[in-house]
Amino acid sequence: MIDSLAHIGIAVKDLEASTKLFQALFGKPSDHAELVPDQKVKTAFFHMGQLSIELTAPTDSDSPIAKFIAKRGEGIHHLSFAVDDLEQELARLRAEGFQLVDEKPGAGAGGHPVAFLHPKSTNGVLIELCQRSETGKS
Amino acid sequence: MIDSLAHIGIAVKDLEASTKLFQALFGKPSDHAELVPDQKVKTAFFHMGQLSIELTAPTDSDSPIAKFIAKRGEGIHHLSFAVDDLEQELARLRAEGFQLVDEKPGAGAGGHPVAFLHPKSTNGVLIELCQRSETGKS
Repeated sequence: MIDSLAHIGIAVKDLEASTKLFQALFGKPSDHAELVPDQKVKTAFFHMGQLSIELTAPTDSDSPIAKFIAKRGEGIHHLSFAVDDLEQELARLRAEGFQLVDEKPGAGAGGHPVAFLHPKSTNGVLIELCQRSETGKS
Repeated sequence: MIDSLAHIGIAVKDLEASTKLFQALFGKPSDHAELVPDQKVKTAFFHMGQLSIELTAPTDSDSPIAKFIAKRGEGIHHLSFAVDDLEQELARLRAEGFQLVDEKPGAGAGGHPVAFLHPKSTNGVLIELCQRSETGKS
């Protein structure tokens, strides 16, 4: 069941410049930075209560984030919801008629299994589902 | 200080159809619906922990939401952060160099004072700041 928002992904061109910008916005430094080779991105996280704002910049011109920015410009890229059982949730959503980008989960930030729903079936919103970790953080 | 996300606004064309879609996505009905005359929109909320997903449909063709959909299609429209003192936060952000859409707060859902930062100064992300209510809900 989708009952908690884990993070909001924001596509940016220059991670260092945007980290400074969001530091000024939130009035505090970022909490964590990470390379995610599987998605060809580097990320910086600002924790806010139970969720994070995740700035995401491409490390390669054929990264999905690079293509998104080329098409739509910088901005909100996806919402990531934590679920207890990713495979079960994907099966439920497939049965409900939602279109999946990935039939099988890949590896997101922190190595957590993640899968995307296609925005065509969710009113233009790219939704990531991520397997909740054992500690409850994701 | 911006330390809590109040809601995520999603621009949709047909509120009834999208409410059914997100009901299937989240596996539960919406919690609340509201007309917001000041913004020329009607909204449906799905509560999720401390935050809400707010589906927003235009009630008039010159609504900002109608213009957004005409230009970019349906999708995530804005992030709304709750602050304790909206006027003070707007002054801080103005001093930091952020561009404000509204110099003075308007009335958002629930009648709470709200103000927007211009996405040109926030990496393409439209950010709403809303005055936290006395009950701590916003």
